[in-house]
Amino acid sequence: MANTKIVPGQPRVKKDEVAQGDVSGLIGMVGPTMKGSFSVSFDESLAIEIMFRMLGEKPAGINADVTDMVGEITNMVTGGAKRILGEKGYEFSMATPIVVSGKNHTITHKCDGPTILMPFNSDFGKVHIEVSFDK
Amino acid sequence: MANTKIVPGQPRVKKDEVAQGDVSGLIGMVGPTMKGSFSVSFDESLAIEIMFRMLGEKPAGINADVTDMVGEITNMVTGGAKRILGEKGYEFSMATPIVVSGKNHTITHKCDGPTILMPFNSDFGKVHIEVSFDK
Repeated sequence: MANTKIVPGQPRVKKDEVAQGDVSGLIGMVGPTMKGSFSVSFDESLAIEIMFRMLGEKPAGINADVTDMVGEITNMVTGGAKRILGEKGYEFSMATPIVVSGKNHTITHKCDGPTILMPFNSDFGKVHIEVSFDK
Repeated sequence: MANTKIVPGQPRVKKDEVAQGDVSGLIGMVGPTMKGSFSVSFDESLAIEIMFRMLGEKPAGINADVTDMVGEITNMVTGGAKRILGEKGYEFSMATPIVVSGKNHTITHKCDGPTILMPFNSDFGKVHIEVSFDK
């Protein structure tokens, strides 16, 4: 979408490790038989580069335009996951996204199930996705 | 619950103001006719004091016990709101909580509706609740 080369790392079950980000989009998911939460966390440098490639302007830091973009990306990625999981018979509805901004924050999904961590790398910084479902 | 005197401030519609916290519990809400998001954000000093009063031990900083407690508080407060709103005919289900930890982070609810900000003060620091529903 933003023509930035994003290299996926090894997806894994998040145990003790701490994954930090500077701006994150979070969304809750509720279905008839399952509920859970999703997050996508960007390094500030990467979020700003994506913003630049999409809109042609480079903000000095994380502003309302950047958090709007992160909220939209959160909706898009969760919407894609919802479609794929729906085809497999896992139905859920998405809540509205929440965007968190703050240097080096960490996220903990308080679910009974494991949290899956999907790390990605790019020339402009890291992004990672986390998803967790209650059984 | 934790015998800390919490003084409520004036609830208001959040406009341009930025409310910061050090540890926040977030939860998504999905109903047949509405969806939204909820957050409760603590100053680190207050979260640690509540932990101390509940469990008798004072952690040096925000650790897994503190984020567990914040997740539980998030569930409790949202559960209370769910019951009160359910009695008024507004039904929704709660997703699983997410806890964010990081000095002075800010939260933006990406909802079509306004965000209601409820600030509280105590001798040990501030806490604020934010809630937003799509119409």
